[in-house]
Amino acid sequence: MTTAGHSAIRRDLREKLTGEAMYSADLKLPDMAHGLILRSPHPHADILSIDTAEAESLPGVHALITPFDIPAGRLAPDLLILDTRARFVGDEVAAVAAADLDTARRALDLIRVEYRTLPFTLDPSEALKPGAIAIHPGGNLAIPEPLSLERGNAQQGFAEADLVFEEHYSVPTHSATPLEPRAALASWDGDNLTLWKSTRGVHVDRDAIAGALGIPAFRVRVVGPFLGAGFGNKDESRLGAIAALLSQRAGRPVRVEYSRAEEFVAGRTRHAAEIDLKIGVKRDGAITAIHGKALLNTGAYQASVAGVSRRLGQGMLYLYRCPNVKYEAFPAYTNCPVAGSYRALGAPQGHFALETLMDRIAGDLGIDPLEFRLENHVPVEGQPGQRQSPPDQIIDSQPLEGGIPFSSNELDQCLRRGAEAFGWDNPLPDSGDPFLKRGKGMAMMIYRGGPGSVSAAEVRIDRSGRITLTSGLMDVGEGASTVLPQVAADVLGVSAGDIATHFADSADTPDAPITAGSTATFSTGTAVVQAATEVRRRLQEIASIGLEAPVSELEAAGGAIFVGSDPSRRMTIPEVAARMDEDHISAEATITPGSPDCIVNSFGAHFCEVEVDTATGRVRVLRYVAAHDSGRIINPRLALNQAEGAVSQMLGFALSEELVTDGPTGVTLNPSYLEHKSPTILDYPDLQVIFADNVDPVGPLGAKALGEVPSPGPAAAIANAIHHATGLRLTTLPFTPDRVLAALGSNSAQ
Amino acid sequence: MTTAGHSAIRRDLREKLTGEAMYSADLKLPDMAHGLILRSPHPHADILSIDTAEAESLPGVHALITPFDIPAGRLAPDLLILDTRARFVGDEVAAVAAADLDTARRALDLIRVEYRTLPFTLDPSEALKPGAIAIHPGGNLAIPEPLSLERGNAQQGFAEADLVFEEHYSVPTHSATPLEPRAALASWDGDNLTLWKSTRGVHVDRDAIAGALGIPAFRVRVVGPFLGAGFGNKDESRLGAIAALLSQRAGRPVRVEYSRAEEFVAGRTRHAAEIDLKIGVKRDGAITAIHGKALLNTGAYQASVAGVSRRLGQGMLYLYRCPNVKYEAFPAYTNCPVAGSYRALGAPQGHFALETLMDRIAGDLGIDPLEFRLENHVPVEGQPGQRQSPPDQIIDSQPLEGGIPFSSNELDQCLRRGAEAFGWDNPLPDSGDPFLKRGKGMAMMIYRGGPGSVSAAEVRIDRSGRITLTSGLMDVGEGASTVLPQVAADVLGVSAGDIATHFADSADTPDAPITAGSTATFSTGTAVVQAATEVRRRLQEIASIGLEAPVSELEAAGGAIFVGSDPSRRMTIPEVAARMDEDHISAEATITPGSPDCIVNSFGAHFCEVEVDTATGRVRVLRYVAAHDSGRIINPRLALNQAEGAVSQMLGFALSEELVTDGPTGVTLNPSYLEHKSPTILDYPDLQVIFADNVDPVGPLGAKALGEVPSPGPAAAIANAIHHATGLRLTTLPFTPDRVLAALGSNSAQ
Repeated sequence: MTTAGHSAIRRDLREKLTGEAMYSADLKLPDMAHGLILRSPHPHADILSIDTAEAESLPGVHALITPFDIPAGRLAPDLLILDTRARFVGDEVAAVAAADLDTARRALDLIRVEYRTLPFTLDPSEALKPGAIAIHPGGNLAIPEPLSLERGNAQQGFAEADLVFEEHYSVPTHSATPLEPRAALASWDGDNLTLWKSTRGVHVDRDAIAGALGIPAFRVRVVGPFLGAGFGNKDESRLGAIAALLSQRAGRPVRVEYSRAEEFVAGRTRHAAEIDLKIGVKRDGAITAIHGKALLNTGAYQASVAGVSRRLGQGMLYLYRCPNVKYEAFPAYTNCPVAGSYRALGAPQGHFALETLMDRIAGDLGIDPLEFRLENHVPVEGQPGQRQSPPDQIIDSQPLEGGIPFSSNELDQCLRRGAEAFGWDNPLPDSGDPFLKRGKGMAMMIYRGGPGSVSAAEVRIDRSGRITLTSGLMDVGEGASTVLPQVAADVLGVSAGDIATHFADSADTPDAPITAGSTATFSTGTAVVQAATEVRRRLQEIASIGLEAPVSELEAAGGAIFVGSDPSRRMTIPEVAARMDEDHISAEATITPGSPDCIVNSFGAHFCEVEVDTATGRVRVLRYVAAHDSGRIINPRLALNQAEGAVSQMLGFALSEELVTDGPTGVTLNPSYLEHKSPTILDYPDLQVIFADNVDPVGPLGAKALGEVPSPGPAAAIANAIHHATGLRLTTLPFTPDRVLAALGSNSAQ
Repeated sequence: MTTAGHSAIRRDLREKLTGEAMYSADLKLPDMAHGLILRSPHPHADILSIDTAEAESLPGVHALITPFDIPAGRLAPDLLILDTRARFVGDEVAAVAAADLDTARRALDLIRVEYRTLPFTLDPSEALKPGAIAIHPGGNLAIPEPLSLERGNAQQGFAEADLVFEEHYSVPTHSATPLEPRAALASWDGDNLTLWKSTRGVHVDRDAIAGALGIPAFRVRVVGPFLGAGFGNKDESRLGAIAALLSQRAGRPVRVEYSRAEEFVAGRTRHAAEIDLKIGVKRDGAITAIHGKALLNTGAYQASVAGVSRRLGQGMLYLYRCPNVKYEAFPAYTNCPVAGSYRALGAPQGHFALETLMDRIAGDLGIDPLEFRLENHVPVEGQPGQRQSPPDQIIDSQPLEGGIPFSSNELDQCLRRGAEAFGWDNPLPDSGDPFLKRGKGMAMMIYRGGPGSVSAAEVRIDRSGRITLTSGLMDVGEGASTVLPQVAADVLGVSAGDIATHFADSADTPDAPITAGSTATFSTGTAVVQAATEVRRRLQEIASIGLEAPVSELEAAGGAIFVGSDPSRRMTIPEVAARMDEDHISAEATITPGSPDCIVNSFGAHFCEVEVDTATGRVRVLRYVAAHDSGRIINPRLALNQAEGAVSQMLGFALSEELVTDGPTGVTLNPSYLEHKSPTILDYPDLQVIFADNVDPVGPLGAKALGEVPSPGPAAAIANAIHHATGLRLTTLPFTPDRVLAALGSNSAQ
């Protein structure tokens, strides 16, 4: 069985396992030239002039572009294709295309750039001070005005509290470290451009690049080859525009591929954040007020900064039953590498603060952390209060007002089943080593994935019975191209393997949003259900004649349409298709996902056991249980992979990863896997994933979002377990051995 | 300008000139194995057993198939994938796939086949005699019963004649000699097969191969890569089925490519024919009766045999005004290589007989050949007589009854303008060499290309303004993928270069017929006009709101929609597209080409000057004028290429080409370019092409068929010119030096 609820094998498995899968950097075209980018050595500088004469005279150099000789269109409000001001060490200054990479490298060395260096800042709080040098016109606040959201009255809520807890949390920047560095291949045919590139949305790339190049969008075709991991992170169009200009000037195809170091420096990082959190409670644990305040470092350019800022407050605003909540965010430009969206955006930073402080509150009140959360989590009927405006008027967030129910909320089930699977109430086994301290910790999470932008899908069946599902969506590696045909197969009553797919080509797939916000299954899935239902209806109409039964009595399953009361009266789908009048039947659905009557959120609860080596400071995660409410699971194996992937990826966030920018120079000091300290398979715990029994009434076939949902859990669960093991309340990520040792030292010194 | 009537550069020009174009044999897949076919050394034999053990044990051999271990489905009524009877020298017996070609060759050598040889015949008249061994069950007539068509009463017509002329004509078989030998690449993904192959119709191949393999058609995807010439000839699906079975058994992709010799022997030849023709005339030249009788050699299997048989009689039945016509055809199986459709099917054989005998009649009556034809060609109102049944009830031919007009007929214009350009009335310059005799000759032709099978096209525009034309049609090299977007551009008022195309993929293009019968522009063009008109209408509806003008006042040209009376009130197509409610607008048209009220035919008249070397027998064509009525010419340059290509290709038919089968053994003696004697650029005459001024009222934008139309002309025009130069009436093709010398010898001996 390969319909919904079954673990259909991912469609790209064979290609990926055998190495047949072609990623953007694997593509070759005849006469293709290779592009390289010259990057700024200065964190902040004006480019006064660029002398390219010597580079251009090098045999084999086909094209060279500088900010002075290209279209001045913008890829984003603050981003030109190449700019005369460099804003971080690694910012794009010029680019060259040559017959081979060696020649391109030599050409880069021969480009003479005259810079005028400017004062710079790497610190967002410095950047926001009056008098700080403006990195962009309009100042260093990266959004028009600070984000400030309030439900109820926080000040009054604190006045009603018996106890008020406060803490400051620090989260550094880190990289998404996809195995595939970004690449783009551009080729022109007359006035028409085709771009194969690492992308999370071909139509969005098309529009951004066409706009920057100053050509009509219909002249740009963007195709998404296999992507070597997305993590919501491969969102910039600049590389594509550079490849396009080089190719146009060279009169031949040009491919540009980032080096590993470039991927770290010129990719997108997670936003570093400084968070102040204050929570007021009654002695019985009831929460009267929450006030969170975040300062975010968005780096030299903004990318998804509004979404990141909002998502950081998501847990504070919505995870607990609390009438009075205030959340403020101040994202600042600095001369650091660019931060952007990275799996779950700001939610991991915010949940880390929230769920460790809640843990401390529970401890101080003498309440078991699990009990505390069972008592206080947001109820299924949503935040209490009066509904004031329809949900669809609130962009990228739930409404702040209360009184609006969740479509479904099985957080309680996550907490109870996760705790049971973990054995929360059982004593931990002793390590048998006096230096190795064991502890358990937990955290819960809320995430508004799911409803996203307008989405579309097309289902088509031709007279031979061939079924094709077309979507503009980019499968960023998560498996949408496997799961969505399962959804269509479920509706049509056929095997998912019998449905061909066509995805992510701006030339001939419906306009799609970026693959982000965990919404591919939810929103495009909704369109798939609708389109497939329409095709099924039309097939049933045809079958109705042959089977001499009204449409209302016909069912579709097992590759056939049959009379429900007498399944022997049946026609196979190809038999029905052969009777079509038209060459093919197709239906396209364009939908706005979600519901005006409720809020769709996903939930989870994580439990872990850690072992802290008090001699070395090293923290190991021994066991991990992740329990999730993502509605009905369409493909259990892929869902398991998502949850496992998110937890193991966030071990780096919790324990080891940090992308370090050198204070005096702005240089990124550790742009490599080794020194960025990504976790490896040896760090992987015994991990169990549980999915709550739930069929969401709004989501397609009952599904809700999953991809990003587990990411906010690990840092807080591990921090709480470290506390349980050692008594330490660590507030600065990651929990590296030196930091743990230092904390142990100061602790024992007290 | 790239709309209709302008010589848009062919879309594949750059790929073909630079070598980027990927033909089927250029395609590679990872782990691909190479297939070879074992062919019969006997012209007729039963295969008793095949011992593959030794071949299979050879390291590197991945798969081996024989008639004894494969599905017994049929590719055609008389054709299995592999059969236990071999019917010509070269017939497929077994096939092997190995890691490399050397291993595959060694494996072929190791296959032991036990044959029981059977009596065989290479001669169609022998094959049709009672008692001849049956090559297929049911006997050697390759159609259910002999073709016999009669209009009026031929016997009575001859009784009314003053003079009756008779002649026997012989036409040997020859090969289409495409530069690209046939190739197929098969790859399975689970139960689903993808085939890239040399094809003239992906949907027809899909259905034939799926049927033979016994799997549903929706599991087979056939894709047509670039084709290295079609000539209506690359029609067999057997190679694809063999590649598919080898790939399935090998568990990896398998590519099979014919060698040059295989292309000659196992490709498809033009039918050899023996023709008896009898014509009755009044002394003033009025034709009272025509009776043609053709014996065709269809070889070991039938391919397009009904169409070839009919088209051979086309000139006899329809080219001249004549109330009494009879035509009979007897296509016979023999143990020769397979004949099939090759550019203009049987028309060149039939026109050769008709137009040389008519020339003799004109000469004997003392009428100038041009005058004779101007007097006697079929009139624009069609054959005289009473209409008896609607044209659409007659398959693959015009109705035999009279009284039905042509949609248009500019044969008269072709004759007059061609003669004028040639200088028909001027004396020929002397060669200055007593051995070199010069002469002029002419011939005219009728060809029912154009209306063909049900055809479809889809035109789509998305919100960015990108326009895509989708057709299932295979561009066999003639340029449909260039011409059809011109047609769409004309309707939409945009530049053809701005229309993307998607052709020839059975997975996602509308079902299309084979590219044959010169009908691509005519029939798919009609669908393109209809689909584009619908898209234009919907764009005009959108523009109507923005421009505040009714749709009826809006025009589309220059990439914009504008108010006809005030072109400054305009919106560009992308501006209109941006206002669409839907993701895209698309329209598909499925049409039955042609008209119930008239017959659509194309016409031509050819004139040539030859020089016969009476010392060597060599004939050179010095000058050639081809005048054609193909309605409105959509792309003059491509049309010129078609006419030039047809004429130069048929120089081989007239002067040199013959595929020789050895009588005692059935072996093809000359399967090579050198010995098959294809003409080269050195044989090419000074050639002028003229297109009649005509806009057909039925064809799309006024176009009629062209591709095959000129092929029937050269053999007769050259024969007539040889007569003019030497007095010889040659009746056996080709006019090789030995044949000319022998005729000159017997002539002077008389």
